[in-house]
Amino acid sequence: MASYIGIDVGGTFIKGGLVSKGQLIDFQKIETEAEKGPERVIQNIASLIERLKREDTEAAGVGVPGMVDMKNGIVRLPPNLPGWDEVHLTEKLEQMVSIPTFAGNDANFYAVGEWQFGAGIGADDLIVLTLGTGLGGGIISGGRLLLGANFAAGEVGHISIVPNGQQCRCGNRGCIEAYVGRDYLVERAKYLAQKWHSDRLSNKSALSPKLIAEAADEGDEAAKALWHEFGRMLGIAIVNYVHIFDPELVVLGGGVVGAWNHFIDPLMAEVKARLMDFPERKLKIVKGALGDMAGIYGAAFVAMKRGAV
Amino acid sequence: MASYIGIDVGGTFIKGGLVSKGQLIDFQKIETEAEKGPERVIQNIASLIERLKREDTEAAGVGVPGMVDMKNGIVRLPPNLPGWDEVHLTEKLEQMVSIPTFAGNDANFYAVGEWQFGAGIGADDLIVLTLGTGLGGGIISGGRLLLGANFAAGEVGHISIVPNGQQCRCGNRGCIEAYVGRDYLVERAKYLAQKWHSDRLSNKSALSPKLIAEAADEGDEAAKALWHEFGRMLGIAIVNYVHIFDPELVVLGGGVVGAWNHFIDPLMAEVKARLMDFPERKLKIVKGALGDMAGIYGAAFVAMKRGAV
Repeated sequence: MASYIGIDVGGTFIKGGLVSKGQLIDFQKIETEAEKGPERVIQNIASLIERLKREDTEAAGVGVPGMVDMKNGIVRLPPNLPGWDEVHLTEKLEQMVSIPTFAGNDANFYAVGEWQFGAGIGADDLIVLTLGTGLGGGIISGGRLLLGANFAAGEVGHISIVPNGQQCRCGNRGCIEAYVGRDYLVERAKYLAQKWHSDRLSNKSALSPKLIAEAADEGDEAAKALWHEFGRMLGIAIVNYVHIFDPELVVLGGGVVGAWNHFIDPLMAEVKARLMDFPERKLKIVKGALGDMAGIYGAAFVAMKRGAV
Repeated sequence: MASYIGIDVGGTFIKGGLVSKGQLIDFQKIETEAEKGPERVIQNIASLIERLKREDTEAAGVGVPGMVDMKNGIVRLPPNLPGWDEVHLTEKLEQMVSIPTFAGNDANFYAVGEWQFGAGIGADDLIVLTLGTGLGGGIISGGRLLLGANFAAGEVGHISIVPNGQQCRCGNRGCIEAYVGRDYLVERAKYLAQKWHSDRLSNKSALSPKLIAEAADEGDEAAKALWHEFGRMLGIAIVNYVHIFDPELVVLGGGVVGAWNHFIDPLMAEVKARLMDFPERKLKIVKGALGDMAGIYGAAFVAMKRGAV
């Protein structure tokens, strides 16, 4: 028997789980305290590892935002974590905990989780997209996670699909993230609510993708129009990924997937209209199976494989 | 001493070379006779292999357009080769020649050639683009050629960057190929020539990218404007690839690279404006080093590796 710890470091909470035989047998979370700087965050990660650790625990994987040198456990420039210009995370962690640790990008670990324990079991070529504040993801091609020359591969949200389009927070214009990210959805909902005189949306003081999905559930036309646009734009981006990677599976995860029924038809219509078709093409587009826990599962798997994924 | 044959099957000619110690020591070409169907083309490939073969020749690689199952040597749906719905190429070839043969996609083999013997020597993460009739390419990530679930990875020309843009021959709209492919360039040159009253371009009976490049060399404003647009559009697409793969190197090959001096500045300006930047980012954009011979070198390398690239 052996168990592995998976840690998912977010801007507000650090979540951790213990995985044994592919099952999550413990889950705990603590505050990140990102504003107190890297040393404190690393102490928090270490204390969470200690709390989760059992006698048979062999290693821990830690998913962190930013560019993470998986070979050397070095974290570079994570958004939401001030002061982390270059942090030798696993080296520092291993001075505090008694098991080997492995670090990687959180969106990549999310993808690995869905691949090994969720919607992607058995697939060798898949793209996992996480829809939330932004659009992130991880790419597995030929049974291997793609990392890139600077450990910055998988920035799938930052492909421009409208040359002079919406300004994206990354500096580029017309990125798909600028049309499916949380901020855009909220702004767009306000605009459509006014245009369509939707009381359901315009009366809300703080809109969120969840509330916009609920409004669509209740039949609000402005909300339905928004998810229609969302599906179309995401469909265009997915066709681009498919033409480049030729995956057998595209997995959609993240909170926005709650609006699945409102965007999947226009998304699939766009895919059908745009995809290069040929007989017996292997391709499915499915919902993630692990929700918020995907990152923890992925981190635990990376720990089990001692970093080699 | 050992030598390897590389074959590059085009719609009009089959080109072949013999590679030993990384050097091309023989080159021959014959007509494809594509219109006579697959059996004849396969005989032509076999006879070219026999002509190139020496006593120390150990294997041959054959690059073919279309989706090529590299594991089983099966070619599916190549454009320009009528009747090739599904052809067991290596099985048939090995009944005619006395050495093992390995088949793969021609654009992928081109990329492998530049990677192993050309502009990409020593790189583990690179994208090779071939600019000609269309925009094709091959992707090497983490030291491995990406193939995809249907052996259709690397269709880099068919990412849409203008949602309701130019109709592409693939069925999609706004593909980058529809803005940098030969047909578009020629049509666009005609339009710009009229608009700018360019005698140099409008007097030509049959325009080609080569002639448009020469017109730009001579200072023609319409031709210069066209290469400027070309560079900008290609720059947008390259940023998209880089955000997804994070390569250390982007290699540009194909005939259109002859206009390099006319498009590289606007291309790099677009990259600079759009690329997510961070300190010490590894990324170079360079010309291919092997020209037309890249596909032959790549096919010979695949033969040397017995298909495992």
